[in-house]
Amino acid sequence: MPSLDPAVAAQLDATAETRIASLLEFLRIPSISALSEHAGDVRRAADWIVAELTRIGFEHAEVCETPWHPVVYADWLHAEGAPTVIVYCHYDVQPVDPIELWETAPFDPFVRDGRVIGRGSADDKGQLHMHLRAAEALFATRGGLPVNLRIVFEGEEESTSASLPGWLEANRFRLGADAVVISDTGFFEGNIPAITETLRGMLYTQIDVSGTPTDLHSGSYGGVVENPANALAQIIATLKDRDGRILIPGFYDDVLALDAKAKERMAVLPFDGDAYRESIQCGPLQGEAGYTVLQRTWARPTLDVNGLWSGFQGEGSKTIIPAHAHAKVSMRLVANQDPADLFPKFVAHVRAVCPPGVSVDVQLLGMGNPVRTATDHPVTLAAGRALEATFGRAPVFIGAGGSIPVAEMFVRQLALPVILLGFANPDDHAHAPNESMVLANYETGIRTIAMLWDILGHEGAGSSRG
Amino acid sequence: MPSLDPAVAAQLDATAETRIASLLEFLRIPSISALSEHAGDVRRAADWIVAELTRIGFEHAEVCETPWHPVVYADWLHAEGAPTVIVYCHYDVQPVDPIELWETAPFDPFVRDGRVIGRGSADDKGQLHMHLRAAEALFATRGGLPVNLRIVFEGEEESTSASLPGWLEANRFRLGADAVVISDTGFFEGNIPAITETLRGMLYTQIDVSGTPTDLHSGSYGGVVENPANALAQIIATLKDRDGRILIPGFYDDVLALDAKAKERMAVLPFDGDAYRESIQCGPLQGEAGYTVLQRTWARPTLDVNGLWSGFQGEGSKTIIPAHAHAKVSMRLVANQDPADLFPKFVAHVRAVCPPGVSVDVQLLGMGNPVRTATDHPVTLAAGRALEATFGRAPVFIGAGGSIPVAEMFVRQLALPVILLGFANPDDHAHAPNESMVLANYETGIRTIAMLWDILGHEGAGSSRG
Repeated sequence: MPSLDPAVAAQLDATAETRIASLLEFLRIPSISALSEHAGDVRRAADWIVAELTRIGFEHAEVCETPWHPVVYADWLHAEGAPTVIVYCHYDVQPVDPIELWETAPFDPFVRDGRVIGRGSADDKGQLHMHLRAAEALFATRGGLPVNLRIVFEGEEESTSASLPGWLEANRFRLGADAVVISDTGFFEGNIPAITETLRGMLYTQIDVSGTPTDLHSGSYGGVVENPANALAQIIATLKDRDGRILIPGFYDDVLALDAKAKERMAVLPFDGDAYRESIQCGPLQGEAGYTVLQRTWARPTLDVNGLWSGFQGEGSKTIIPAHAHAKVSMRLVANQDPADLFPKFVAHVRAVCPPGVSVDVQLLGMGNPVRTATDHPVTLAAGRALEATFGRAPVFIGAGGSIPVAEMFVRQLALPVILLGFANPDDHAHAPNESMVLANYETGIRTIAMLWDILGHEGAGSSRG
Repeated sequence: MPSLDPAVAAQLDATAETRIASLLEFLRIPSISALSEHAGDVRRAADWIVAELTRIGFEHAEVCETPWHPVVYADWLHAEGAPTVIVYCHYDVQPVDPIELWETAPFDPFVRDGRVIGRGSADDKGQLHMHLRAAEALFATRGGLPVNLRIVFEGEEESTSASLPGWLEANRFRLGADAVVISDTGFFEGNIPAITETLRGMLYTQIDVSGTPTDLHSGSYGGVVENPANALAQIIATLKDRDGRILIPGFYDDVLALDAKAKERMAVLPFDGDAYRESIQCGPLQGEAGYTVLQRTWARPTLDVNGLWSGFQGEGSKTIIPAHAHAKVSMRLVANQDPADLFPKFVAHVRAVCPPGVSVDVQLLGMGNPVRTATDHPVTLAAGRALEATFGRAPVFIGAGGSIPVAEMFVRQLALPVILLGFANPDDHAHAPNESMVLANYETGIRTIAMLWDILGHEGAGSSRG
């Protein structure tokens, strides 16, 4: 069993206070990529990272322009004979609404009861910050790194990574590497160290139902003019049956059935349904018949309404037929579904079930393919050993219900192996109020990353590069 | 055929400019009863009316306290031997959202192309103002009125008149009268003078679906945790079938079928479906099979979603399972449906169809019984003659799809005959952006009202009172 270089360990022990102060400073920047009024904050976060990367010892640190939010690039390529790894994290965050459910201001982060609380603490600024600090400890103690690193930090991950494919194409020349390490995932329930093997894909849409140019008096016209809000509800109700099966014709055509080995790997994981329900305080679990909870969230597609709005939402009553009604509807996809193939099927279904008397449009807001990573890659194996050495137990291999479009892009566009090494605890409230990061995961994870680079620097990544 | 007293006519001709200035001043007060932040404005409107009533010549003008918004009362009871009539209007208005669809500020009213445009111009401050001006013209030319009038102007009509039943009970002693004239309805399509014979009742509810205490990541939990927004859509979709028939068990049990006479009265009305659709710019008309448009809106119950909200409503995408989802749902009722009987049936249905995994609550936000008025009452007949003399054609008797809870209260609580004499053109955009009042209806209607009081003062109301 390897152990962490004592000099690196000592540097990290001595810098704990500065590290947390730096993390809180970073989290205070409200880098919400989805909201255009925060575009300046997203850029401010990028500038902050570039200054840090430069100060630590990276070279060529740069805020790279894209059509929307910038990508941060940096590298350090002087570890002769050692592998080259791309490190990917994202520095943008989710919007904060419903703001009234936060116990404190989401961008005024603080530490309490062993957690850092604030938007982005777990997803993903906290994990990005861990990579900065691991590299800093290595640079500070040795003046260099044991491996060659290329940093790619994105500012649009929470907005479906619209600019990233173009940026990756345009920057192929400086993205040569043996593997990509993506830190934007988490541990298994109960905070068990984990490496993520599969990610679901995504198809994100908006349904817009239109009736009349203005709201109508529901007394005068109720009974003869189709109501866009009722129509929208009818449309949504046809998307999924009571058992969670999606009713869009052709939706399951390309879904790969789980093989026995994958089922077995899921079956042996310690899963406590009561604890799971308790952690999110939900009612009885639902879903497709014939599948376990882990199979449903990792290996089966699903569909959720993410937002609804129409007509009067205020206090009291207003008697109108709303002029229009809207829903954000997203689908999570699994191997081998293709969102580009499913979108027209979705649109055709919505148009077919829309009641007469109103019109309907469907917007495409985002797409990403499902991803499967190699569990026997040398970087995966090294990450497993580093996790075991620092956290005290070997990682389990898990799936994730979420989507990380960039993982699919690295695989598809650059043909690179991707390793999903993330450190968030499942109870971190990512995308929700009171997001937090377990401080022990943050601290130990920094040591895991430093040790991973040392193992790879010593043993190589099993490729011809470096 | 009677004609308007030339002295009253001359007074009205001479005061046109002052009158419009006063109307615009009144409309500028944003008396939105549904929004608590406007409570002070509602009271300001009440104060404004009391000052006007006193200045004109009414007595006992008073802002009467209620648990919420005040009632304005005044009277003038010196027309010995003449009938006593209660005049009811309301001085509160609907909220203004969606504000972005107004061509100008809703409380900065103006006159253009023969219309007064602004919130409340038609519903109902404009009509209230007509009664002030008609009485003013009579007081100014004769020093008194030809009939005894009791003024009851409400400040909660757009918020389901919650305080009015209690106020009517507590003020029975000063509400003795031969009839009630309510001016809160309108003419028939094409701006044909009309007296309203039936009003639909109302049951206004809010459905609240709750899942988890906070929003969840839709990737992590999609497929196993029931989504409140999907559940709400499923619930709403079970309320009505594609043909507009309401599916709540027992909903139609007490509905009175239309008799041949009523069908005949509707059948002879000049109704142009294309013009109707054009006026509101809607798609093909929908509704219950076997009923005409007028039957559907006047004599058949219906159900509409008035508002929807859940989760993320912003720009772009946010991948959550919303913690909760809400809908405002109202039903319009017809004789002899009873909202107090239907509410528990509605709640039982909603609970029965709510998917497992989420919880549902239903709030009661308002109730009002359907109303049928006497077409052969002396006040109705006098109103018909006054309309014919001033507008040049005899009124048609119509129904109204809307609800005026106070009409039902006067009938049920005080056993008074109610006459629904309103002057709005159906294209007035009541409850919607760019509400307007046709100036000719306003001006001529003032003369109709003055003449109605003269006819009643001369001929009586056919009762033992006065």
